[in-house]
Amino acid sequence: MLELYHAEPVANSMKVLLCLKEKGLDFVSHYVDLLRFEQHEPWFVRINPNGQVPVLVHDGKVITESTVIDEYLEDVFPEPALRPANPFERAKMRIWTKFIDEYALPALSVIGWHLMVRQVAKSVAQNEFEKLMARVPLKEQQDKWRTVAGESFPETQLEDCRRKLRVSASRFEKALAEGRWLAGSSYSLADVNAYTLAAALPRMVPEAANAKTAPHLLAWLARMNERPAVKAALAMPNKVPETLRTFGSSQRS
Amino acid sequence: MLELYHAEPVANSMKVLLCLKEKGLDFVSHYVDLLRFEQHEPWFVRINPNGQVPVLVHDGKVITESTVIDEYLEDVFPEPALRPANPFERAKMRIWTKFIDEYALPALSVIGWHLMVRQVAKSVAQNEFEKLMARVPLKEQQDKWRTVAGESFPETQLEDCRRKLRVSASRFEKALAEGRWLAGSSYSLADVNAYTLAAALPRMVPEAANAKTAPHLLAWLARMNERPAVKAALAMPNKVPETLRTFGSSQRS
Repeated sequence: MLELYHAEPVANSMKVLLCLKEKGLDFVSHYVDLLRFEQHEPWFVRINPNGQVPVLVHDGKVITESTVIDEYLEDVFPEPALRPANPFERAKMRIWTKFIDEYALPALSVIGWHLMVRQVAKSVAQNEFEKLMARVPLKEQQDKWRTVAGESFPETQLEDCRRKLRVSASRFEKALAEGRWLAGSSYSLADVNAYTLAAALPRMVPEAANAKTAPHLLAWLARMNERPAVKAALAMPNKVPETLRTFGSSQRS
Repeated sequence: MLELYHAEPVANSMKVLLCLKEKGLDFVSHYVDLLRFEQHEPWFVRINPNGQVPVLVHDGKVITESTVIDEYLEDVFPEPALRPANPFERAKMRIWTKFIDEYALPALSVIGWHLMVRQVAKSVAQNEFEKLMARVPLKEQQDKWRTVAGESFPETQLEDCRRKLRVSASRFEKALAEGRWLAGSSYSLADVNAYTLAAALPRMVPEAANAKTAPHLLAWLARMNERPAVKAALAMPNKVPETLRTFGSSQRS
């Protein structure tokens, strides 16, 4: 049996939801409400000591890290294949998933925390806030909460994150001008991993991701949005109020 | 034909050298002298536009990113296997390589830049320095060069990096108390990837990586150091002068 602990279909949760939908796998969905800090509750931290979604539980075995989960699903349920058969294209796929995880998504995350999570942090009463922080397992995550509850990130850091998103847009554009999919000729985990990030770019950095500067990226996004698996993943529950979807809703524009 | 562009056998270069040695693969070695900034020279940036080692060239195809290169070598030369056959242990392997690349090695890297690369940066004449910077392709790398050429990293950041190394030591210890190798029962790319980092811990954070606090980690390091492939990789050329090996030599203590 497959069980997935996940939040709304954006960011890291989306990577795994999309992979499961592409493979047509049945799974038990456990929605973890990040706005209610459920990811830090004792019952969840017992499943993932880092207190982060998504988490896959397969026949009782716990697997964390969205990119690793998708490679695991590929190892266990190889059809339909989401890794290119050609080893060189497979390496290209992994260079993309690494680039997205280490460079592009962290940049988008800072902006998302600034625009959206900050509002959540500000809505918590002062005495309640410290109680919540005491439950956050990772110091890095605590730091982010305290940053957005306070003065938020400095403008220089936000601008550097936007620069990274512009670099990302231009890398996507270059690759997609050369091939139909990011890793080359076949749809792969590179595209699955990139989707939620790339879908945010036209709104986050319109100067770098518009019809003139990034026509191949926009055409790829349109192809992605037509995939039944993308539609099915986006139709998964989303408890984030519309007013807080500055970050989230941009993922599906 | 396999060609590897690499520096001395530490950090990311070591990951790939060790993998090649474990598999007994012949390769043409191209030493890139980082102290002479060869990684930023036009001939090298034509091979890797990021200006970073290691780079594998296999029958003319260029593959970058040490962790991706090792998975590629595994895909193309599967014997002897360095990925567990069991998909769950394979996922554990990938959680480790991800943790090392995203959390532990960047922390060690900051300390290494502070202790060693700073001396290189300070040895360059002012007018020469800006010429060298103009050739560095990645802004992130330029920033690090400018930081160590100036006041270096603030003590709070260095201490946070040491904290991350202590966290890393304790995670290694916990895993190695449960299994002989990081991913469980079999030697894997998790161990290959971890070696160069873990070997630095007894010197960098002795309070967290000594015989009392981390006996299983030290026993694993001793087992690693006995492997013929580790010895062969460590015997590869190293042009770093002894006086600058604060960072490097700790890798083989």
